[in-house]
Amino acid sequence: MDPSVRIERALDAALLGAAGRGCPPGLAQAMRYAVFPGGARVRPRLCLAVAWACGDRDPESTDAAAAAIELLHCASLVHDDLPCFDDSPTRRGRPSVHSAFGERLAVLTGDALIVLAFQILARRIHASPLNLAAVMATVGECVGAPRGICAGQAWECESEVVLKDYHREKTGSLFVAATVAGAESVGAPTEAWRLVGERLGEAYQVADDLGDATGARREFGKPVGQDDSLGRPNAALELGVSGAVHRLKGLVASAIEAIPPCPGAAALQALIAAESRRILPEELSRLAA
Amino acid sequence: MDPSVRIERALDAALLGAAGRGCPPGLAQAMRYAVFPGGARVRPRLCLAVAWACGDRDPESTDAAAAAIELLHCASLVHDDLPCFDDSPTRRGRPSVHSAFGERLAVLTGDALIVLAFQILARRIHASPLNLAAVMATVGECVGAPRGICAGQAWECESEVVLKDYHREKTGSLFVAATVAGAESVGAPTEAWRLVGERLGEAYQVADDLGDATGARREFGKPVGQDDSLGRPNAALELGVSGAVHRLKGLVASAIEAIPPCPGAAALQALIAAESRRILPEELSRLAA
Repeated sequence: MDPSVRIERALDAALLGAAGRGCPPGLAQAMRYAVFPGGARVRPRLCLAVAWACGDRDPESTDAAAAAIELLHCASLVHDDLPCFDDSPTRRGRPSVHSAFGERLAVLTGDALIVLAFQILARRIHASPLNLAAVMATVGECVGAPRGICAGQAWECESEVVLKDYHREKTGSLFVAATVAGAESVGAPTEAWRLVGERLGEAYQVADDLGDATGARREFGKPVGQDDSLGRPNAALELGVSGAVHRLKGLVASAIEAIPPCPGAAALQALIAAESRRILPEELSRLAA
Repeated sequence: MDPSVRIERALDAALLGAAGRGCPPGLAQAMRYAVFPGGARVRPRLCLAVAWACGDRDPESTDAAAAAIELLHCASLVHDDLPCFDDSPTRRGRPSVHSAFGERLAVLTGDALIVLAFQILARRIHASPLNLAAVMATVGECVGAPRGICAGQAWECESEVVLKDYHREKTGSLFVAATVAGAESVGAPTEAWRLVGERLGEAYQVADDLGDATGARREFGKPVGQDDSLGRPNAALELGVSGAVHRLKGLVASAIEAIPPCPGAAALQALIAAESRRILPEELSRLAA
């Protein structure tokens, strides 16, 4: 089955229960709004691609891992957009969750999506306890503290921040979750996959920084120039646009290089290459040619 | 081992990892502040008491369940106190988390504690996959949507609310988690325990409403008169103080009555009776004598 269909189907099934019968209507609407229609679903597609490269032996567990990771990503966006953080009026070209549903429902939507992510994983424990224990450990580590998304976001509240740590935790961690949990969901060895995830996460953050600094991400419906005005660390402001583009290309190449020998290696390489073209606009790409 | 020692030890071990080395200092401090020193630890004590009544066959899994439930309770308090909800400057007689650490760290503290709760449970999957799958399902259901704490809190954003549903989800659900997961953590049948949890949860909510309406909970360091001024449903405002006291006593009696035959039934009855005296101040108790 097409990866996108698998992902949307798994997310739909999850929301059908959580935001279904009995749920307060406002919360149900806000939860669906936060998840559908999605962005590029980069992380769950990566998770599925890794599991597929490793043999796709347990698609239901992989789908659960992919959906959980996407729900956690959506939850982090909802909370990041809140007035106390980025105060972002828009997301994906339309009002952010708190703009559309109010701040209270935005806080609760994030909370409920975090819980839902773990519920999806818990439902697969019976079928594959060892693999799911590993997936849950990885996912928990990558989103919580001391080194997951929550920690990454919390570095924004500190006066001294190491750019690399901040990016690794805030953005890189879910890419690591995607590659490592993808392998874990089918019981494959995970060591090499961590590196692939780390490098892709870093590449993606550099692309995001470039988008913010150059205005290129306006086309994705995101606000621009936020990092500079909010005083947040940004690779393009630090390395210059050309330096950042160069860094991004190097990271993508080394991610591809880090893919371990496996049946689906070639397809995964192609996916990563296509993705890197998607996140790096043509006019920027030429800068580091 | 004394239940309180078990609970504090399990919470301490959880925070030692999550709020330990590598964690942004502000987040680490705020997480500890949200969990220590605790309140009465009513829910984890109830969880341990039920597991003990059922034979206490797997203390480590029970401790994990109890600690997870308390972390989720603490997380919900941190988010409930936020400016967009209760805007509560104090909690347990000292500044609330957002008053002490700012709104951003308060949002992240809640998020990180939710994740940590599921991480604690995930770490026990290896030892007892079937029991832990059941515990995770119960805990997830009781805190998320459509009928857990998030849903309960979201009813505050709706114009039409059924008082009973609202209370069952916002407050009752974690009491159900405590009794049901307590039994599940040792592999005991759970049906009867759900009723015990529901009745205790309702009793606790009525006590909380009484505290808010009569000012009796000022001694616990909580603000009073909030429900009336925020237009929230409150049993004491609806039934009158004497009616609410009567209702509370009836609920405690029926919770005790619902305890199924088990080795530790007598001790559990005593715990519940003691707890009901703690939550219902003497001068109010006399009203329904």
